[in-house]
Amino acid sequence: MKIKPLGDRVLVKVLPPEEKTKGGLFLPQTAQEKTQEGLVEAIGESDQIKLKVGDKVIYDKYAGTQLKIEEEEYLILKNTDILAVVEK
Amino acid sequence: MKIKPLGDRVLVKVLPPEEKTKGGLFLPQTAQEKTQEGLVEAIGESDQIKLKVGDKVIYDKYAGTQLKIEEEEYLILKNTDILAVVEK
Amino acid sequence: MKIKPLGDRVLVKVLPPEEKTKGGLFLPQTAQEKTQEGLVEAIGESDQIKLKVGDKVIYDKYAGTQLKIEEEEYLILKNTDILAVVEK
Amino acid sequence: MKIKPLGDRVLVKVLPPEEKTKGGLFLPQTAQEKTQEGLVEAIGESDQIKLKVGDKVIYDKYAGTQLKIEEEEYLILKNTDILAVVEK
Amino acid sequence: MKIKPLGDRVLVKVLPPEEKTKGGLFLPQTAQEKTQEGLVEAIGESDQIKLKVGDKVIYDKYAGTQLKIEEEEYLILKNTDILAVVEK
Amino acid sequence: MKIKPLGDRVLVKVLPPEEKTKGGLFLPQTAQEKTQEGLVEAIGESDQIKLKVGDKVIYDKYAGTQLKIEEEEYLILKNTDILAVVEK
Amino acid sequence: MKIKPLGDRVLVKVLPPEEKTKGGLFLPQTAQEKTQEGLVEAIGESDQIKLKVGDKVIYDKYAGTQLKIEEEEYLILKNTDILAVVEK
Repeated sequence: MKIKPLGDRVLVKVLPPEEKTKGGLFLPQTAQEKTQEGLVEAIGESDQIKLKVGDKVIYDKYAGTQLKIEEEEYLILKNTDILAVVEK
Repeated sequence: MKIKPLGDRVLVKVLPPEEKTKGGLFLPQTAQEKTQEGLVEAIGESDQIKLKVGDKVIYDKYAGTQLKIEEEEYLILKNTDILAVVEK
Repeated sequence: MKIKPLGDRVLVKVLPPEEKTKGGLFLPQTAQEKTQEGLVEAIGESDQIKLKVGDKVIYDKYAGTQLKIEEEEYLILKNTDILAVVEK
Repeated sequence: MKIKPLGDRVLVKVLPPEEKTKGGLFLPQTAQEKTQEGLVEAIGESDQIKLKVGDKVIYDKYAGTQLKIEEEEYLILKNTDILAVVEK
Repeated sequence: MKIKPLGDRVLVKVLPPEEKTKGGLFLPQTAQEKTQEGLVEAIGESDQIKLKVGDKVIYDKYAGTQLKIEEEEYLILKNTDILAVVEK
Repeated sequence: MKIKPLGDRVLVKVLPPEEKTKGGLFLPQTAQEKTQEGLVEAIGESDQIKLKVGDKVIYDKYAGTQLKIEEEEYLILKNTDILAVVEK
Repeated sequence: MKIKPLGDRVLVKVLPPEEKTKGGLFLPQTAQEKTQEGLVEAIGESDQIKLKVGDKVIYDKYAGTQLKIEEEEYLILKNTDILAVVEK
């Protein structure tokens, strides 16, 4: 099954939150950490979208619509709900 | 009876949610799974609509206006409330 | 008395909900069935209106302003509040 | 005293609701009958206004700002809050 | 002290409500009489303003920002919050 | 430390409310007196701003964001939240 | 890890509030002091952004989305949520 987002929407695969710090300790999550990371899986046809498939992105946890495909969690987000790209 | 949606609206036939996983187990539905699938039955006259009759689409469960035609469930949705097309 | 809607408004005569199914059974109405049918009686001067007098239309029950003329129920609706045309 | 409405506003003299039916019976008013009739007394300078002084109009009871001039009730309404013209 | 309103704003001196009817009786004020009269004292630089200093105007009681200058009551109103001019 | 407001914003130094009347009596402040005076200290780069540094202005008490610099109270206001200039 | 903000967004490193006054006394923070300082770390591609990396900025405490990178606190803010630049 392949999902094609419409318009200015982007399909993002949700990445599990990294719960360990560099030194290996568990980092408690606070209500203040409202962001979440994901991978761009597919993009809509709008030329407003400056992302490409494979980009690692940061988005607001409370944006978008959740979707489960073959037991994996995805989000359909508006392009403008994606805050930043994480560069390697 | 034939329904012709107006403007940027789309008539979608509601598909029953697939409740089984691939392995045949029942998948409990959570409040987080807010999407629903349907089939495009008719489209309005707006050239903003990039869908065609027969497309399988994903939309937000809480969008649109419900309609019952000859015991079948339909929705009249705005084009922009349809999130994605499911390609085969 | 003749009512001429202004701008992008449409005067619609409310049709009684059909409460029988094809087989002659009564169909209980649920809160989910939010639509209502009516007949277009008069239209405003806006060229955005793609309807004509006599069209049978579907609209959201909670849209528009109710009006009683000679014991008949009417609604003055904005053109954009009419969801679809029912073709014969 | 003469009142000149500004911009896209219209001064309307409130007409008492007709409480008798054609056959002479009193018609109980329900919460659903939200419209009210009036006569256009003066109009603002906007060319968006398609009304003329003397027109009998229907407007939503809850729109506009009430005004009492020499014991008569008036409303200053936006042109777009007038729903329809009643033609004779 | 001279007050110069900015943009599309107008400085209006609040007139006391006339509480007597023509025949000299006191007219009880009801919650429905939401308008108030005033005199235009100064206007902003916007050419959207069709008023001039000295105009007697009607405005909504609940619009604008109150201001007391040398014990007199004034209002700074947006041009669009002034409903009508009272002509003599 | 110098603060440069961005865009259509203006930095205003809050002036203490004059609590005495001309005759030297204390004037009780009521909830209705919602305005406050200040001095323009710096302006953003937008050419929509018709103010200059040193102008005495009236603004709504509840607009803007408060800022304390070296024990003095300032506000960063949008240009459009400033109601009027007080001329000497 | 490098974060690239999208569109009109700006990545800001949160600066700890200065809690001492010049004379060395602790300054109690009140609810009225709603601003916070930060350093611009990265900017989006929009030419509406008049900031550069390294600028010290003032923003509203309640704007933006919080982000923790390697134990440091950051914010992703819209360009228009940044109130002023602090010049040295």
